[in-house]
Amino acid sequence: MQRYFIDQALQPDQLFKITSEDAHHMKNVMRFRPEDTFHVVDQKQTTYLCEVAEVSQDIDCRAISPVDESPELPIEVTIYCPLLKGEKFDWMIQKATELGAHEFLIYEADRSIVRLDDKKRKKRLERFSKIVKEASEQSRRQVIPHIDFVPAVKNLDFDAYSRLLFAFEGNALNPAKSIQSAMSGVRHGSRIAFIFGPEGGFSEVETEQLSKHHSIRLGPRILRAETAPLYALSAISYSFETPASD
Amino acid sequence: MQRYFIDQALQPDQLFKITSEDAHHMKNVMRFRPEDTFHVVDQKQTTYLCEVAEVSQDIDCRAISPVDESPELPIEVTIYCPLLKGEKFDWMIQKATELGAHEFLIYEADRSIVRLDDKKRKKRLERFSKIVKEASEQSRRQVIPHIDFVPAVKNLDFDAYSRLLFAFEGNALNPAKSIQSAMSGVRHGSRIAFIFGPEGGFSEVETEQLSKHHSIRLGPRILRAETAPLYALSAISYSFETPASD
Repeated sequence: MQRYFIDQALQPDQLFKITSEDAHHMKNVMRFRPEDTFHVVDQKQTTYLCEVAEVSQDIDCRAISPVDESPELPIEVTIYCPLLKGEKFDWMIQKATELGAHEFLIYEADRSIVRLDDKKRKKRLERFSKIVKEASEQSRRQVIPHIDFVPAVKNLDFDAYSRLLFAFEGNALNPAKSIQSAMSGVRHGSRIAFIFGPEGGFSEVETEQLSKHHSIRLGPRILRAETAPLYALSAISYSFETPASD
Repeated sequence: MQRYFIDQALQPDQLFKITSEDAHHMKNVMRFRPEDTFHVVDQKQTTYLCEVAEVSQDIDCRAISPVDESPELPIEVTIYCPLLKGEKFDWMIQKATELGAHEFLIYEADRSIVRLDDKKRKKRLERFSKIVKEASEQSRRQVIPHIDFVPAVKNLDFDAYSRLLFAFEGNALNPAKSIQSAMSGVRHGSRIAFIFGPEGGFSEVETEQLSKHHSIRLGPRILRAETAPLYALSAISYSFETPASD
């Protein structure tokens, strides 16, 4: 069922308006008529079954009743990833949103190929925000991932996370663990972060700066920069969302 | 290290030639010189450390010694997927090759949006074969996935697989299982297949034809057609390749 996100809290039978781009989509793409139904995720991340009351400049809608669903990963996963060449970053964040990522933080990697000034970053963030919003609607999420630019590794603070997993094949000082063993003890409700390198990988300075964190293997094959986050999120979903017996 | 695939069996100290596109790549992209080393996967799927002996029209090479590695999934996974719009299919097979897929079989789905005549299929297969070969080299595989067109679901024979997993949310007759429970009892060395629908999903006729197989959920979010195979392969890698303790 079609889904939209709004910035207000709803309750059963409440009347509300949908405006601007979403109103345009409802009128001209979905061609909604009065009594057509759809889902709205409100400010409190509650999903409501709603119906169209009247279609005018805006769409007058009525919240019917809350929908019982839990589409969010039980662990909040932040993906640290530098910008990638071409459309790779666009589709990584689209897929990673489908796979349940909670946040994307774009850091300045020593070997980043793509570097943008503030004006370009602002425009890029607008496009990224549109991509993750649409992917959140399509994949039926209750949360639109947050996305922003952050500084280089040496200036990042990872204290907010119960674990930082560093996608790096490891070295003598910091042998890579399997993702399972690196995740052991992580509980539902935890916040964790994965940090991924650019196409050219992490610099020696970065691997030194990250060496106190768990370096992890994502299987025995070499994954491209844009593929690794999808593996990590799928593995988290597989191990925390789908019970071994049902 | 750079990797190439050749159609002959190698043994230590054997001299051999690399020709055509790979020779071009070695000369003009890698700019290899005598004594430069690289990996070659031979016809028996053994990886050898090799060195350049002489660069001429072709490249004269020497196999030094076999390399101990096991980059292949311990389960042979066939991905049944219809063609998808735009570049979605191209990048799905590229990513699924990185993630260890053994075979791609492109079936005619009732709701397939993309339909090609035999001439177009032949050209498309050439492109797909190039994509999976390059992804196999880049991800350091020992197997280049096989890819081909096959008929519609009603004419497919799944007897070769120890299990067929049907990516479908399920219905009263065939409630979807978690991928874990659908995989229970699958052992190393098994051949399994996943069948995925087109953008518009399976038709009722197809779900009926597939109803005797395990329908599986890939987490609680709705994944796009091109994302679902990547989740499935990541989950297989996570559960069969990375031990819980190491």
